[in-house]
Amino acid sequence: MVTRKEDFSKWYLQTIQKADLMDYSPVRGCMIFKPNGFEIWEHIQECFNQKLKAEGIRNAYFPMLIPESFFTREKDHIEGFAPELPWVTEAAGEALEERLALRPTSETMIGDAFSNWINSYRDLPYEINQWANVFRWEKRTLPFLRTSEFLWQEGHTAHENEEDARQRTMKMLAAYRDLSEELLAMPVFEGEKTPSERFAGAVQTFSIESMMQDGKAVQAGTSHYMGTKFAEAFNIRYLNRDNEHVYCHTTSWGISTRLIGAMIMTHSDDQGLVLPPAVAAHQVIIIPVGPKKKLAEVTEKAQELLQELKSAGIRASLDDSDNSAGFKFNEWELKGACLRIEVGPRDLEQGQFVLKARDEADKQSYDLANLVDQVQSSLTAMQERLLTKARQRNQENIYTDIETLDQLQAHIEKQRENNEPAGWVLAGWDGTEESEAKIKELTGFTTRNIPFDHYFQGEHALPRKEKCIVTGKPAKATVWLARAY
Amino acid sequence: MVTRKEDFSKWYLQTIQKADLMDYSPVRGCMIFKPNGFEIWEHIQECFNQKLKAEGIRNAYFPMLIPESFFTREKDHIEGFAPELPWVTEAAGEALEERLALRPTSETMIGDAFSNWINSYRDLPYEINQWANVFRWEKRTLPFLRTSEFLWQEGHTAHENEEDARQRTMKMLAAYRDLSEELLAMPVFEGEKTPSERFAGAVQTFSIESMMQDGKAVQAGTSHYMGTKFAEAFNIRYLNRDNEHVYCHTTSWGISTRLIGAMIMTHSDDQGLVLPPAVAAHQVIIIPVGPKKKLAEVTEKAQELLQELKSAGIRASLDDSDNSAGFKFNEWELKGACLRIEVGPRDLEQGQFVLKARDEADKQSYDLANLVDQVQSSLTAMQERLLTKARQRNQENIYTDIETLDQLQAHIEKQRENNEPAGWVLAGWDGTEESEAKIKELTGFTTRNIPFDHYFQGEHALPRKEKCIVTGKPAKATVWLARAY
Repeated sequence: MVTRKEDFSKWYLQTIQKADLMDYSPVRGCMIFKPNGFEIWEHIQECFNQKLKAEGIRNAYFPMLIPESFFTREKDHIEGFAPELPWVTEAAGEALEERLALRPTSETMIGDAFSNWINSYRDLPYEINQWANVFRWEKRTLPFLRTSEFLWQEGHTAHENEEDARQRTMKMLAAYRDLSEELLAMPVFEGEKTPSERFAGAVQTFSIESMMQDGKAVQAGTSHYMGTKFAEAFNIRYLNRDNEHVYCHTTSWGISTRLIGAMIMTHSDDQGLVLPPAVAAHQVIIIPVGPKKKLAEVTEKAQELLQELKSAGIRASLDDSDNSAGFKFNEWELKGACLRIEVGPRDLEQGQFVLKARDEADKQSYDLANLVDQVQSSLTAMQERLLTKARQRNQENIYTDIETLDQLQAHIEKQRENNEPAGWVLAGWDGTEESEAKIKELTGFTTRNIPFDHYFQGEHALPRKEKCIVTGKPAKATVWLARAY
Repeated sequence: MVTRKEDFSKWYLQTIQKADLMDYSPVRGCMIFKPNGFEIWEHIQECFNQKLKAEGIRNAYFPMLIPESFFTREKDHIEGFAPELPWVTEAAGEALEERLALRPTSETMIGDAFSNWINSYRDLPYEINQWANVFRWEKRTLPFLRTSEFLWQEGHTAHENEEDARQRTMKMLAAYRDLSEELLAMPVFEGEKTPSERFAGAVQTFSIESMMQDGKAVQAGTSHYMGTKFAEAFNIRYLNRDNEHVYCHTTSWGISTRLIGAMIMTHSDDQGLVLPPAVAAHQVIIIPVGPKKKLAEVTEKAQELLQELKSAGIRASLDDSDNSAGFKFNEWELKGACLRIEVGPRDLEQGQFVLKARDEADKQSYDLANLVDQVQSSLTAMQERLLTKARQRNQENIYTDIETLDQLQAHIEKQRENNEPAGWVLAGWDGTEESEAKIKELTGFTTRNIPFDHYFQGEHALPRKEKCIVTGKPAKATVWLARAY
């Protein structure tokens, strides 16, 4: 096993394969989600569907194939997506009259539908969501994090006015933050993307960004305020309260299967996969231990414990294969089982079981009478520990006192020499694309987002930067800089 | 509103649009599933996922794009699907070296994966499922029932031997039957498809078929035993208990969004959509009634009832719009709300509410104190009524005494003259494709399936047919004949 320090990329690929989460496919850049990997997505879906339901937003499904003419209606949109589109040009033995794109996102298809469905202010807000596969033909791919086909949800809403649309935009970003932190135990940084990093066609794009163990960033979710740009391109108009035909203000927002990759890079260790209990397929693995002649008896008892845990709604399994206990311990660490329960003849005599959490070094004995309660509280504790640990690591890898590009380059060089993450750097930015380009060219760092105001307030306030890290001119904004996946 | 008797096809299209279940899309043959329509699919998914879980079968996700070379590996498979495939030929501005098909089904992609994942008998059975969009470029399309893109689940399993594979094949057909009858209140006929109607590449195909109100059939689900055909084409081999490398026996099975169309054609009436409560988005609609000056007060009480029902997990809504009560009654009948609750000032004075089930003519008053219990038992009763009613209609539209093609033609002609469904005809068949072709040519009827043995036993036993309806030769099998969607 390669360690994180030795080669983080190799470690990641090894971790997801040993955990049986995925496999490569014969189609370039497309991956197979094996059941252990797909189940994580199912838990994300359950959680987000609940949040949608609470907001009164329902699911729908739109066609995957989008006529070429749709894309060209919004200029920025086609410019942004054209380089990555796969095209269907023939079907059923005949050339198509118009090429059909495999959707990279559905603003155009849904915009066209909204223009048919929305007539009056009484129809607003019109808010829907879809779970779907989308395609972006990427040059460099990485399982979960960047694949030619991926799974996501995309919410699309239309509103009477800017205020309502902006409220929806921010509310969904907050929902993504909550999902990341509560479900995935993955702390995120909320903020606005710079214009050059905006979604193609958006007026403003907001993101949650999360920090991996190698200090790089992952954009973990985005929420866009479109103004009336898509409404104008697709003629989404309504009769307002003053009896005038006016354009809707629209939003869209999405999270994808890249969340899975980000979560894995956040929590896993050199022994393999570490998953927060809330999404783990294997919350508990029970492993019978002890001398061979006693194993049958112990396994029988282990079966009872298994049923007890399952009845309590805990995702538990029993490994009663012929492999040695040591082999099994290793195997289930690789697979990210959250809690390991060992039951041996001596434990049973004493009415006890041994419990070890995947993210802790020590194991401990507990009364069998408290099995379910103990497991539940251990799962809760592990979920909290992972979030806390990730938060601490974030704090340690944030640099707020770098003022110039020279200092940034020196910082990166020093970290590289020490084989430490370069982390995230808070910097002043003069608001120009030229400065962003310069940072990227010289350091490989890109602007992640512009932190929201509240990050600059209170006890752990970030400092506002007065001068641009590139030009020394007055800063228009304080931004996060980092290498990103 | 067109009635069923006047024009069944028009009635169907009108029903699904007035109920706001779907819309057409700009891409030929591809439809939009609006929230009211998509929610039905979500309930089907929930139900089937539970059945899968009980069988220990987990979900996965495989790439949608399938290389052309994969299709050509199984001769019958490519012959069957080639005429309907859409192809991606370019991506990211470049022509692809090999065309990629939009999956019509995933035997090839999953067969290739199985060949990598399965090594030993210890890995068997290997059983997975995926929920996905699939594509079959159809000439004639009909919303839900036949669309170029549709949603489905496809299960794929590999086994040590024929017996295990056949058991899985039959078990999943039974699961489809149960889902159709219990969830969708749609009775089905189980049987084996004739060789000409088999899935491309299967050794045997089994189906559930259901009868629509116009007497036509819908193939509502299929389960296939593949023998070792796909295993040989994709080299899915394993080391057996005798240390020999042998081929797996595989199965696949699927149900799709066409179930939604079939269910609608089974239950709906001339007033619009009728849905079984188990899948209805609107199980209860509450409508305040009475004189205008009392409406505010009544609506306040209606809000309380709404909360009470929602707290009990019932999918209830309140229509407090400005429209008249009559308008609302009509509107919610179109939309298939299962139960209508009317609350007026007099009802409230007497501590009562009025309840009307969508499929019954009369309404009745009940005590408000029993609201939740009454609603729950009314929902259960409606679910049962719909199944019973559909079963009775099936019995009335089954013809078991037609012995020759002349008789069949005369029967069809007579029914047409009377504007009655031609229904299903049980017929002897000599087992030849020629006879099937002849039946189709002369009557438009096709073989639906060969009923399982148990249909020929017991109280309501079907008669076995001794002679072929076409040739008069000894029958190899007794088959259902019907027009089909």
